Amino acid sequence: MGAVISFNQETSPFGNSVERLVNLVSGDLDAVNTVILDRMKSPVEMIPTLAGHLISSGGKRLRPLLTLSTARMLDVENDHHIKLAAAVEFIHTATLLHDDVIDESVLRRGQASANVLWGNKSSVLVGDFLFSRSFRLMVEVGSFKVLDILSNAAAVIAEGEVMQLSTAKDTATSEEDYMAVIEAKTAALFAAAARSGGIAAGASPDQEEALDQFGRNLGIAFQLVDDALDYSGRQATLGKTVGDDFRDGKITLPVVLAYRRGTDEERVFWQRTLEEGRQDEGDLRQATRLMEKYNTISDTIDRASNFGQQARDALTKLPEGPINKTLSEVIDFCISRAY
Amino acid sequence: MGAVISFNQETSPFGNSVERLVNLVSGDLDAVNTVILDRMKSPVEMIPTLAGHLISSGGKRLRPLLTLSTARMLDVENDHHIKLAAAVEFIHTATLLHDDVIDESVLRRGQASANVLWGNKSSVLVGDFLFSRSFRLMVEVGSFKVLDILSNAAAVIAEGEVMQLSTAKDTATSEEDYMAVIEAKTAALFAAAARSGGIAAGASPDQEEALDQFGRNLGIAFQLVDDALDYSGRQATLGKTVGDDFRDGKITLPVVLAYRRGTDEERVFWQRTLEEGRQDEGDLRQATRLMEKYNTISDTIDRASNFGQQARDALTKLPEGPINKTLSEVIDFCISRAY
Repeated sequence: MGAVISFNQETSPFGNSVERLVNLVSGDLDAVNTVILDRMKSPVEMIPTLAGHLISSGGKRLRPLLTLSTARMLDVENDHHIKLAAAVEFIHTATLLHDDVIDESVLRRGQASANVLWGNKSSVLVGDFLFSRSFRLMVEVGSFKVLDILSNAAAVIAEGEVMQLSTAKDTATSEEDYMAVIEAKTAALFAAAARSGGIAAGASPDQEEALDQFGRNLGIAFQLVDDALDYSGRQATLGKTVGDDFRDGKITLPVVLAYRRGTDEERVFWQRTLEEGRQDEGDLRQATRLMEKYNTISDTIDRASNFGQQARDALTKLPEGPINKTLSEVIDFCISRAY
Repeated sequence: MGAVISFNQETSPFGNSVERLVNLVSGDLDAVNTVILDRMKSPVEMIPTLAGHLISSGGKRLRPLLTLSTARMLDVENDHHIKLAAAVEFIHTATLLHDDVIDESVLRRGQASANVLWGNKSSVLVGDFLFSRSFRLMVEVGSFKVLDILSNAAAVIAEGEVMQLSTAKDTATSEEDYMAVIEAKTAALFAAAARSGGIAAGASPDQEEALDQFGRNLGIAFQLVDDALDYSGRQATLGKTVGDDFRDGKITLPVVLAYRRGTDEERVFWQRTLEEGRQDEGDLRQATRLMEKYNTISDTIDRASNFGQQARDALTKLPEGPINKTLSEVIDFCISRAY
């Protein structure tokens, strides 16, 4: 099973803190991998092949790790968290498959993306398959509460992605709109993943709320840093292409702030490159220059830092111990990788 | 609410028998439409707009009708069947949205398809949204049995579609492979729709099994007739384009049989037009000529007729009455529309 996960300290955006979290729940994580491999199975060969390409490609397993660690932090006494963690990873993988089709991505985790290797059609359908299988796993666990939380998260993710389609290429997107998108498309699943683990362990309503807040704020911080890194040289070491968001005309916070603070002439630049999609050589460099001029990357990271603090505050309401401490370090690393 | 459904006797493939079924459960169907409109809502405008385009476009509502009518046939005493019928329609609509992206369809129910009007990206995401919402509806009903059956059907549908991708353009597809595809992509949801209604009404295990058989065989018959009609002049009156399957290189039973029975020269024709996708004017006419030569369209309809008989046999194990009688007439019409 071990081979399914390969953490590379240089490429893992969470570095040593995630390694430590993995070590704290390593038995559980092996069990999750077994469930994942088992439930990807299908007589239709393409399904395990395509799903396996993405699932085995050294992803961080961060979301299932949240489910496992919150369950263990609250002294879970059954193995419901194993199936829930696998369900969370399936929802995430299904979302990535559909995302890559929508963004016409060519790389994912430093490898050719599934849509490039097997075509958009297969990626859409295998995503649907994994999504359905995730629900079967939740049904097996037999908690309506968890089913409600995770099915709602899935609907919110799709809603956030549609919202992003509407804001894409619109340089007049407000900071508020941008925050609504990342809260829906990233933070909702982080929150549901952390909360589900707690529910498996019989969390109190206050603990559930704290887990939701922890996951949600970590998710927002994570996405803000991701969006900042897309314009940063550090990105190259993370196995991603620099400037993907720019080329896709995605309006992320570094752009929102640069547009708002820019001169008329600079706004014409953003409109040409992002709204009209007419990009020449040197435009990406000009974009990062404008971001530096107005400190929009560091402001984005500052905001991430604030959300990280809120995630840390939520952890103080949860049982102390090595897992709690390591989750706090994961927050630290999430922010520090931006520097 | 009435405006949401418009049955046109000329375009409805089920004609008067479906009208009669609608009349028998009209109060329930109004309630389903209310739930559907309510659960399509989203602050993201695109979602109800796009979903509404498809859902209000005069679809047959056949699958939710199965859920409602089987629940009523078994004297349902709560309103669980209403939410389940809406969930079934959402699963179906999500599937259609993804199908149209995958098949690059331009028409659906005689209108421009959603992917043409709003783009592939929105269609994929709104499909995901509806799919998630369908699970929320099932969760509200609070039956793990139904959740299990419908989530399994959803996984089987996706599996069937991937299978179809692999058989598409392969003229050597066997009849067995073809049957496996339509059982998965069409019959599984018919079976789950009929069975869910029964479960809402507290069906016995024998009745559940009979409902599953009724739905499954009706679904197979329905798809076989659909595939036969795609090569038939009658298709034009049903609001669909004739020869869509041919142009898409889909290997349906009329082709499978014509290829198997054909001469070497004829096989070269099928390989050129379907496998290699090199089609000239007159090729569709040549395809139908070969199908007539080997009676493959009428053989396809004969097979549909056999499955229709099995669906009728299953109905004899269920309570008699006007609903049972009308469901039997729906089977008759499903077959007879082919002639």
